[in-house]
Amino acid sequence: MSAVDITITEVGPRDGLQNTKSFMPTAAKNAWISAESAVGVRQIEVCSFVPAKVIPQFVDAEEVLTHANGIPGLTPVVLVPNFRGCERALAAGARRVTVPISVSEAHSMSNVRKTTAQAVEDFARMAALVRSQAQAERAQLVGACSTAFGCSLQGMVAETDVVRVAVALREAGADAISLADTVGYANPEQVKRLFRKVRAAIGEDFPIEAHFHNTRGLGLANALAAFEVGIRNFDSTLGGLGGCPFAPGASGNVVTEDLVFMFESMGVSTGIDIEQLIAVRNTVFAALPEAEFYGHISKAGLPKGFQPLSRAA
Amino acid sequence: MSAVDITITEVGPRDGLQNTKSFMPTAAKNAWISAESAVGVRQIEVCSFVPAKVIPQFVDAEEVLTHANGIPGLTPVVLVPNFRGCERALAAGARRVTVPISVSEAHSMSNVRKTTAQAVEDFARMAALVRSQAQAERAQLVGACSTAFGCSLQGMVAETDVVRVAVALREAGADAISLADTVGYANPEQVKRLFRKVRAAIGEDFPIEAHFHNTRGLGLANALAAFEVGIRNFDSTLGGLGGCPFAPGASGNVVTEDLVFMFESMGVSTGIDIEQLIAVRNTVFAALPEAEFYGHISKAGLPKGFQPLSRAA
Repeated sequence: MSAVDITITEVGPRDGLQNTKSFMPTAAKNAWISAESAVGVRQIEVCSFVPAKVIPQFVDAEEVLTHANGIPGLTPVVLVPNFRGCERALAAGARRVTVPISVSEAHSMSNVRKTTAQAVEDFARMAALVRSQAQAERAQLVGACSTAFGCSLQGMVAETDVVRVAVALREAGADAISLADTVGYANPEQVKRLFRKVRAAIGEDFPIEAHFHNTRGLGLANALAAFEVGIRNFDSTLGGLGGCPFAPGASGNVVTEDLVFMFESMGVSTGIDIEQLIAVRNTVFAALPEAEFYGHISKAGLPKGFQPLSRAA
Repeated sequence: MSAVDITITEVGPRDGLQNTKSFMPTAAKNAWISAESAVGVRQIEVCSFVPAKVIPQFVDAEEVLTHANGIPGLTPVVLVPNFRGCERALAAGARRVTVPISVSEAHSMSNVRKTTAQAVEDFARMAALVRSQAQAERAQLVGACSTAFGCSLQGMVAETDVVRVAVALREAGADAISLADTVGYANPEQVKRLFRKVRAAIGEDFPIEAHFHNTRGLGLANALAAFEVGIRNFDSTLGGLGGCPFAPGASGNVVTEDLVFMFESMGVSTGIDIEQLIAVRNTVFAALPEAEFYGHISKAGLPKGFQPLSRAA
């Protein structure tokens, strides 16, 4: 297997399932995580530590995380919406924790009933909690700037606000920053500009990641633009499952298998076996008969003569 | 209206209708062409001068071209597969003629029963015919390198072959060259590399255009990549209608309204009113009840606070 150039984090078991009507049985979630891990996906967001009364889908968060923690070579990621969720996640053995902080005040109030400043304060408390862990077991904390590229409630989000929140999250103790296009408003020019600005402010070597949606069809173009300015970490979901409840007409996340195909065809190694990944798609669909799935490469098939990098000598 | 930075050529009335099962009535075609022209589309490929027994859809090519020639501000484009088609097109008053030449020998034999070299010879005869027109009325001849990024019959297509065919078409008398991803095999890295190579060979200032399909989901990413290396002319179809008969599982052309949205959101002016364009989509669908349409922006809607460039002061 060739060296891996970029990290694709499958966020389907969290972002994909968040708005799915039917409950996916724990065994099916675990099978999904195992199957994607087995084809070369090294980072998977496996659940959200949100109260089960808010999102019943994640009532089994502890169980799913325990399963994922047992998979060799996989770094499981969990999402937490607040301090209480962070406590639960760490108690359950979380090693990488993503905390979304809405840069849009309107989205922040609507989503977690806090101002952005209050959410950043909460993040600082989580960072302190993480730092109280033994060094060897200390979890990584990712500050995810939600609605970084615009908000369907507030409209435009000022780039100075995104930079300010990113810097505040780093100062509060984040190990990495993510910029998230929560409602699918981003365009490639904005992507390049904003990642450059944020990186200039938080430090060129500080880890930074991209989370795009495909709501308006620009998911892959935005990922390409981010790659071109040096971003090497991308979130996506198998079959594009999911979207945001505040994005009307939302048509899903970036499709993992299409993202893998784009990068691998460019000669950028993902470490993922694209053919086997497409097969995993079918097993996940079988467990979610009501959900809507997207994507092109699974329908059109790989180009004739296509050489997956993961199978290169 | 701001100055136009790029030209988007709507090829739906030709590439979109080529494989549609039902005949679109001439009045509906004319209405489509008029409607898109009225919202700012300045170049439309309106028909193909192919024998009606081969593709019955284009039995009304002369009528449609005559209608399109009467629309102020519009440059109609027609496709011709061979010398006889070129004669017919010029006799009907064509002002811009696209001739597809398959770089893949297998595709060329399958499509027009000629080798690539024979097709280039045919092209030279068409160029001589065009040059025999009075200078004021002389048509523009576009040499379109089909399967430039790969072929579903032959597999890989050598970049040296593409460069050779492009140079041959220029030498044979082309006024512009187009590189076409006929079966949706292109990736952004290849797009940049191949356009650069071809431009270096045919001359940096020689007009060159891009025709991408969205078969494997990379249509917009490829358009972005081409834009980044200086390409300013793009083909697409409203609702992504169409595809190539030799592309199994093909899922359409690049979607015009999504392409317009991508560029306009980047601050790149297309001269097209995106809101009105989305409305045109509905009238075309009504005339093609059996066809499959694609696209994101028409479903998700424009971002809140989005300012179309075409309405800027």
